Amino acid sequence: MELRRWPRKNDPESIKSRQDELRALTQDGEVFSHDLTPFAGAQEAVTGVAVIPVSVIGPLEIELGEYELEEPFGRLVETGRASDRIYVPLAHTEGSLSASLYRGARAVSESGGFKTFVLGDRITRASCFVCGSAEEAVTLSRFLDAHVAEMRRWLAERVEADPALSKFARLREVKTHVVGPMCHVLWRWTTGDAVGANMMTRNSYVLNMGYVMERAPVTPQRSVLEANMGGDKKPSFEYFQSGHGKTVIAETTLTEDAVRRVLRTKLDDLADLAWAGTHGAIASGMQSVAFTPASAIAALFAATGQDLGMVGTSSMAHGAARRVDGGLQVSLRLPGLEVATIGGGTTLPYARRWLEVIGCAGAGKVYRFAQIVAAATLALEISASAAMATAGSAEFFRAHHERGGLR
Amino acid sequence: MELRRWPRKNDPESIKSRQDELRALTQDGEVFSHDLTPFAGAQEAVTGVAVIPVSVIGPLEIELGEYELEEPFGRLVETGRASDRIYVPLAHTEGSLSASLYRGARAVSESGGFKTFVLGDRITRASCFVCGSAEEAVTLSRFLDAHVAEMRRWLAERVEADPALSKFARLREVKTHVVGPMCHVLWRWTTGDAVGANMMTRNSYVLNMGYVMERAPVTPQRSVLEANMGGDKKPSFEYFQSGHGKTVIAETTLTEDAVRRVLRTKLDDLADLAWAGTHGAIASGMQSVAFTPASAIAALFAATGQDLGMVGTSSMAHGAARRVDGGLQVSLRLPGLEVATIGGGTTLPYARRWLEVIGCAGAGKVYRFAQIVAAATLALEISASAAMATAGSAEFFRAHHERGGLR
Amino acid sequence: MELRRWPRKNDPESIKSRQDELRALTQDGEVFSHDLTPFAGAQEAVTGVAVIPVSVIGPLEIELGEYELEEPFGRLVETGRASDRIYVPLAHTEGSLSASLYRGARAVSESGGFKTFVLGDRITRASCFVCGSAEEAVTLSRFLDAHVAEMRRWLAERVEADPALSKFARLREVKTHVVGPMCHVLWRWTTGDAVGANMMTRNSYVLNMGYVMERAPVTPQRSVLEANMGGDKKPSFEYFQSGHGKTVIAETTLTEDAVRRVLRTKLDDLADLAWAGTHGAIASGMQSVAFTPASAIAALFAATGQDLGMVGTSSMAHGAARRVDGGLQVSLRLPGLEVATIGGGTTLPYARRWLEVIGCAGAGKVYRFAQIVAAATLALEISASAAMATAGSAEFFRAHHERGGLR
Amino acid sequence: MELRRWPRKNDPESIKSRQDELRALTQDGEVFSHDLTPFAGAQEAVTGVAVIPVSVIGPLEIELGEYELEEPFGRLVETGRASDRIYVPLAHTEGSLSASLYRGARAVSESGGFKTFVLGDRITRASCFVCGSAEEAVTLSRFLDAHVAEMRRWLAERVEADPALSKFARLREVKTHVVGPMCHVLWRWTTGDAVGANMMTRNSYVLNMGYVMERAPVTPQRSVLEANMGGDKKPSFEYFQSGHGKTVIAETTLTEDAVRRVLRTKLDDLADLAWAGTHGAIASGMQSVAFTPASAIAALFAATGQDLGMVGTSSMAHGAARRVDGGLQVSLRLPGLEVATIGGGTTLPYARRWLEVIGCAGAGKVYRFAQIVAAATLALEISASAAMATAGSAEFFRAHHERGGLR
Repeated sequence: MELRRWPRKNDPESIKSRQDELRALTQDGEVFSHDLTPFAGAQEAVTGVAVIPVSVIGPLEIELGEYELEEPFGRLVETGRASDRIYVPLAHTEGSLSASLYRGARAVSESGGFKTFVLGDRITRASCFVCGSAEEAVTLSRFLDAHVAEMRRWLAERVEADPALSKFARLREVKTHVVGPMCHVLWRWTTGDAVGANMMTRNSYVLNMGYVMERAPVTPQRSVLEANMGGDKKPSFEYFQSGHGKTVIAETTLTEDAVRRVLRTKLDDLADLAWAGTHGAIASGMQSVAFTPASAIAALFAATGQDLGMVGTSSMAHGAARRVDGGLQVSLRLPGLEVATIGGGTTLPYARRWLEVIGCAGAGKVYRFAQIVAAATLALEISASAAMATAGSAEFFRAHHERGGLR
Repeated sequence: MELRRWPRKNDPESIKSRQDELRALTQDGEVFSHDLTPFAGAQEAVTGVAVIPVSVIGPLEIELGEYELEEPFGRLVETGRASDRIYVPLAHTEGSLSASLYRGARAVSESGGFKTFVLGDRITRASCFVCGSAEEAVTLSRFLDAHVAEMRRWLAERVEADPALSKFARLREVKTHVVGPMCHVLWRWTTGDAVGANMMTRNSYVLNMGYVMERAPVTPQRSVLEANMGGDKKPSFEYFQSGHGKTVIAETTLTEDAVRRVLRTKLDDLADLAWAGTHGAIASGMQSVAFTPASAIAALFAATGQDLGMVGTSSMAHGAARRVDGGLQVSLRLPGLEVATIGGGTTLPYARRWLEVIGCAGAGKVYRFAQIVAAATLALEISASAAMATAGSAEFFRAHHERGGLR
Repeated sequence: MELRRWPRKNDPESIKSRQDELRALTQDGEVFSHDLTPFAGAQEAVTGVAVIPVSVIGPLEIELGEYELEEPFGRLVETGRASDRIYVPLAHTEGSLSASLYRGARAVSESGGFKTFVLGDRITRASCFVCGSAEEAVTLSRFLDAHVAEMRRWLAERVEADPALSKFARLREVKTHVVGPMCHVLWRWTTGDAVGANMMTRNSYVLNMGYVMERAPVTPQRSVLEANMGGDKKPSFEYFQSGHGKTVIAETTLTEDAVRRVLRTKLDDLADLAWAGTHGAIASGMQSVAFTPASAIAALFAATGQDLGMVGTSSMAHGAARRVDGGLQVSLRLPGLEVATIGGGTTLPYARRWLEVIGCAGAGKVYRFAQIVAAATLALEISASAAMATAGSAEFFRAHHERGGLR
Repeated sequence: MELRRWPRKNDPESIKSRQDELRALTQDGEVFSHDLTPFAGAQEAVTGVAVIPVSVIGPLEIELGEYELEEPFGRLVETGRASDRIYVPLAHTEGSLSASLYRGARAVSESGGFKTFVLGDRITRASCFVCGSAEEAVTLSRFLDAHVAEMRRWLAERVEADPALSKFARLREVKTHVVGPMCHVLWRWTTGDAVGANMMTRNSYVLNMGYVMERAPVTPQRSVLEANMGGDKKPSFEYFQSGHGKTVIAETTLTEDAVRRVLRTKLDDLADLAWAGTHGAIASGMQSVAFTPASAIAALFAATGQDLGMVGTSSMAHGAARRVDGGLQVSLRLPGLEVATIGGGTTLPYARRWLEVIGCAGAGKVYRFAQIVAAATLALEISASAAMATAGSAEFFRAHHERGGLR
């Protein structure tokens, strides 16, 4: 094979040419046998498919909030609350994950259901202006801090005139941070029902080049579109605390009865596990405090066409548990759920269908979707915790190991 | 729908019953139309499929190491090195990702190719024994530190006798960490070509219950199988530094010519970007230093049947770049690549085929696979960095935005 | 000695009684021989003194900013800049520290001096309201977010009426953060020339108990005055990024000549060291990027009556270095300098005198003092870096070790 | 004043010359009036003194461990345990700190006293070898990993021959960490009763230059003596987890009676505060979990001649609390206590006397001293926590604020 000849287009001929090159490497052409037409616009060099089995588990009984962004500042307002019963699709290949999530959902249903809340909605592009000195960077940061309203107006005008810019990405706040000659700038946006990475990239870019580089009182040596002050697809404290995408919290209070009958453990066992697990997380320098949020989030993301590169950031989680009268109050805060119900992979076959199954396809559904993800993740946390708590007991050991049962 | 009636089995009747319940929720039955038989053993409650388009990009020209574990201590030994040209499958729906990775691979090929090295191979189960006091926890930790060889022997005997235990999960080191009355214990294993989470869980469990709880000089109040001292599917400093799964490094030295012609930027631009991006990562409290490793890793994981819940941990990355004579030396350290070429999702259709395409299906291939992932990830890092560097230039702005071109 | 009899008062009799009890334990009464009268109000159970030698090093040539807080929002405004030559007092017992700081200061003087900037001024009390549920905590957080202006007014009225409250601690911003049923609240204050821990504690307390607990739409179960969402005397990412006390940056551009003649190393050696040290910090999970800021800060704090418990937080530092034409541009960002020129230890003998020596005693001097600390700290960073860079050279090895010279 | 003329020597004439220059800047010569002779060897440019008042508080009732290092591997062995009653000197100027520590000590005494344990003893110099490529760095790291015993022998021979090297700094372990072309090396030492920074620096240096640079299979481009892979005077995860200096744990179980009578709060209030404070620490990205350890540590360090630049690292702390039958079990882990009873500031007047007061002056006392510091720090933690818990109560509000009492 010759380097320069690898075709990247998705016309039938290019696809076939790639498949022909590779066919000898695999015993079976199944990966090449699907109709790729619906996927031709999704990415370059499409050559085959991956198929992942999807389980459906439910119902999750959730009381969800309804939300709107208040203009012009983008404050998130809860406009109502409603209950629903939802069956979630999980694309994965991990034995027992679906059964475990089911068990958690059952325990919560028997305890009165989940409640979920969206706390925030922002997505950030972290640009950086490399100036001639810290002095210049400080001057620039003061200028930017003082011109947020003006930049909002300037951008709004450009967006009207220029179809390459996004009307959906709206600038909400600007945060500067000077390190040496670098003036890092967090452009904070809302992007509606899309994750909006491309939208905000385009709008951030025109702000950088059209406004800052042209009008700032100092001339930066360089403008860097993204310089890690945030955390694109990389967990960061900035996003763990300030949020990225949707910040959501889910909670429930498990009853003693549900813990005993469904989870087959005890309130005290779960409370003690939470205590040991929290201190273990601290000792290991883990940012999140949780057991296995990424398992649920990845499975929901893979089924619904979300960006799998965002599994790590979206799985940042801060769980908390405490004994209350007659139960265990448990909650999970997901600060950076980067989810969409329009655009990207959500528009493709399969993904769109699975979104329909949970009533989350299309515009106006993203807060609903984020809350469903949070509830499903908490369901798995609860069941996985119970398994950990149980697995430490002598009875469990005898039952499952000495009698040969351990899976 | 009735809570207690949701079936979780994968016999044809249960599958159909689930599909029938959900069919009304989606306009199109495509997600239910695949033959689910091959996936019936993969997870519970299988109801349909997700299909993700896969591009294939290459060649990546890589000089890879060959490795063996030296018994009995599991030291990783490099036994040889060989070059290969590899076409990688990428399952995702992010426009430009594949083209960008291709561009990075080309720049590296023109610069002499990648070199990759496996630095370590360990996977850890972080158990915790909650004792009566810190005093008891200290006593327990001293006992464990002093009995590692004995525990290895004890376990080896049990493994021989008990088919529920894993012969592949071999105990290598034991690290204790006392916090209050908790004695956290990192059981560090090798698990061959599997990720080995279940293997090590079973063996850790029998150590906890059969050895520690029975023989320790103090009687712990509780044994917790996993208590977060490590970081199962959650990035942690413990794993960022000490590794989890395979620790791999990939490097290349980009020539000035390749940077100019293929990446359309300049060595200094890339070097300055690396500097700003590194300091941005520090300022944002980001553990990793990299641009978008998770994009490449998630795409390779989704194609090859890896556990998508491990995208976040496997994407922990420490990149470094510096100017050298005539070029830019760039490298990426991935401390926690949790990859497999046997077991779990890798045995299923599609996944197995894509592993075959890169010569990584089955036993003895895991170090090769880990190195390919690292090289592909570095290819994308390089190209994404070049895009960031370019995007800050006035020329790029004029070409792409003022003339209407910005994607 | 009898537990209940240990006197804590500072009348002469109590002091003597304590001294008499302890005299037998030490060979020499020097620690008891000072007149303790001036210290009787500083703390309880005063029994003797510690005496630490103080060196004085200079001049540091600094261009400092002059700042004011703009009312009512407390925006920090630079009103002017002026140059000064300052001799700094350093209380410590570390051989070579003072000589090294002097060397750094000389190199900077020969390179044109330091420039320093104050970027921010806030101090935070991180209270927490433990509510009945996450739902209630969310409700409370929305209420607080919406009532900042009203809380400012309410507090201003109380402060007028109640002499127990502080007029100097002014509420600037309020940030809420919900985790489970906990609504953490960061009360952000300015406190003039004092560190202001007690001032803001009193005012935060009355807000908690008098406003929040009385008027919030939900009744928290508990109000916790300080619950670690910030980082009182403990480094935290929150304060590393958002600042605590004074956020200051110092910079200089070292000339090639100064580096060669004064620091006896080379620009490239320093640049390479900065690169390796930055990546070392990342690899070790160090929040700061610097070499030894705490040495300078502790020495200045001990001389000038600052709170030594704040050495750790005040030493959080983000340094950056890069080659520029003809030199090396170096800077240090200190986000959390908790310094005072009035109140606490600064009013006592010795401390007050050393503040006078640098022109920082009393009201209106705190920004000057913070900048001097930053410049002195950067001076030591530069010299310590040069020592590290030199120490890696073969010439240095031969000169200092083989010929017997290494200290 | 002229730059080149600032004298740094400590002969009477130089001292006087410095004092004369500065005398006009301060109204009162008290800082210059002490006899500086005993301090002339402590640092350069000694010009005056700082005097800090010292309270003495006690008794702390502690059951301490006795420890030895087992040769040749430096394993820490507990050889006995003994109880003692200790009065601790606290040099500081923070009103209520001493009274609070006293209150905590009393509550513990009434609850049966402290127990303390030393868990580890290591101090690390983090050198770095910058190689030509990651490939070379990997080669070097394998070589170092394989030659630890040989390096120990080589160094032991050099130490015999070369009086510039330290006999007390013994190499225990070597840990390598490759990032790009950098091979970071953690040389881990024990240094007896000294902190040993200079000792290990000299021995690390000769290993770097005499062994590694001469014998390694690759020739590093640079050897950097300290490159931040550890955390000299800067808190880092590496040291938070693996320890630096002495790793010590202190614990006690507070009785309900002591909590009520001495601390004037309730077990549940303290338990809830610990829970909120732990989650607050996580939310703020704080590494430590504690309230105010640095206050106690700084006060003990300032009294006893410890290095005040090490207050931040020595105050890294992991506290844990839980309800047990009839009480609250509380403990504090201090992973990086950098303390000495010989060398440096401990040999000077005042410092040496205060060490005598606690029976910690001179050789063989460092483990005792470390444990006393840990117990005193826990005493303050307990009392400060009680104050926080109390301060949230309505009764406290009425008593202290409405009736005018709040300090």
